[in-house]
Amino acid sequence: MEKVNLAQKLGLFHEHWSPKIVGELNGSYVKLAKLVGEFVWHQHDDEDELFLVIKGNLVIKLEDGEIRLGEGEMVVVPRGVRHLPVADDEVHVLLFEPKSTVNTGDTGGERTALAQWI
Amino acid sequence: MEKVNLAQKLGLFHEHWSPKIVGELNGSYVKLAKLVGEFVWHQHDDEDELFLVIKGNLVIKLEDGEIRLGEGEMVVVPRGVRHLPVADDEVHVLLFEPKSTVNTGDTGGERTALAQWI
Repeated sequence: MEKVNLAQKLGLFHEHWSPKIVGELNGSYVKLAKLVGEFVWHQHDDEDELFLVIKGNLVIKLEDGEIRLGEGEMVVVPRGVRHLPVADDEVHVLLFEPKSTVNTGDTGGERTALAQWI
Repeated sequence: MEKVNLAQKLGLFHEHWSPKIVGELNGSYVKLAKLVGEFVWHQHDDEDELFLVIKGNLVIKLEDGEIRLGEGEMVVVPRGVRHLPVADDEVHVLLFEPKSTVNTGDTGGERTALAQWI
């Protein structure tokens, strides 16, 4: 059992839109990610997904609006809800989601990234 | 779908050792808690439990050592591992654990608190 320092882990990678695994519990992973620009519209059919902003600002566009998150703010995107994460400037987020979750959800494509432990 | 501001939610309660629910996903709850002093030794037989320190310092004593967490640090206490949270000064933590998790685990007793939504 080892503790995880989020800032230290965030210093270990620089890729955008490529979540890294930093913890595991009850069949889910805790991940860290750096995001900037616009991702792809997608949904996760079977997984609710938590976004917690550690640094910066994140917009999660929805079909019927958007959620704007600043530091220390979080939201749960329920399964089946199409969403598009957008960040004008680099944002650092903590994600919590089942192990089965793929970053691009049902959309797939070239921006699909297999999460790895750091 | 509403965002949650952790600082705002932490301002809504003052009790110690009484986690409050602020989010729900995949059968688990996100909780916030304020801790100070020493809790009771306990374990969760069927649930892994995540502690993320938002403010302050937390010691999690274990049968074979201890984990010291500062702000921005987290640890997952695996199911079946006896632990005792201790905080010299008030600490604010985010917990992530299955809905079935009771704060005192297998120990029960007067410090058992049913988590409620805030």
